[in-house]
Amino acid sequence: MELKTSYAFGKTVLTSYDETQQKVRDALAKEGFGILTEIDIRKKFAEKLHKEYRDYLILGACNPPVAYEALKREVNLGTLLPCNVVIYTMDDSSTAVMIMDPVAALGLVGNPQIEEIAQEIAGKLRRVLAAL
Amino acid sequence: MELKTSYAFGKTVLTSYDETQQKVRDALAKEGFGILTEIDIRKKFAEKLHKEYRDYLILGACNPPVAYEALKREVNLGTLLPCNVVIYTMDDSSTAVMIMDPVAALGLVGNPQIEEIAQEIAGKLRRVLAAL
Repeated sequence: MELKTSYAFGKTVLTSYDETQQKVRDALAKEGFGILTEIDIRKKFAEKLHKEYRDYLILGACNPPVAYEALKREVNLGTLLPCNVVIYTMDDSSTAVMIMDPVAALGLVGNPQIEEIAQEIAGKLRRVLAAL
Repeated sequence: MELKTSYAFGKTVLTSYDETQQKVRDALAKEGFGILTEIDIRKKFAEKLHKEYRDYLILGACNPPVAYEALKREVNLGTLLPCNVVIYTMDDSSTAVMIMDPVAALGLVGNPQIEEIAQEIAGKLRRVLAAL
């Protein structure tokens, strides 16, 4: 099932959380993204707050040549990087994959040169989703 | 000197990159932020692209209780977390600290309950800047 908000796009899949996570990593690599950051939200909330939370992972994906071009054009863009890919378990036990919409997020910058790059990244990320 | 864009706010300081980094870490801790992610952009570009770039660090700051409340209200918000604090060397050798404006970024969500949280986080981050 497709998912869409004003700031992210994604889908639900019937594969498990762990299997989906692996497929997302493989698909990101195939499109030239490295994973620069990983946050296991479930673990963090357990550690810091002693609260239970669903399985929830935030992967920070970055395509280095594109990031290099983007930062040359807009030095403060690092405040909006990397592009987050979130994987979590839905209440019905299916798995959701949601990706920060780079066109929405980088649209905040108001720089046409950055919008062009955001469109390029969005295309790659749509292919990542299609591969799941 | 104050710095402001449509998506980030910050300032330049006369302390060195390393000293500023340490002050930012201390000030974030004092306001209840943990640092969940760190990206050394200079190092990444050297490793992946064999290109030189200025000193440039992205710290992903997160206040766990606030993040817990925010994710309860908006499950896909992880695509826009954590809140990035960027430290880089300016061309004139001063150091810039730029923070993602949570009111701008989380404003993309269009959820008044999230805007309230964004205002709270923005207040804490302004105190971080003031401490530098």
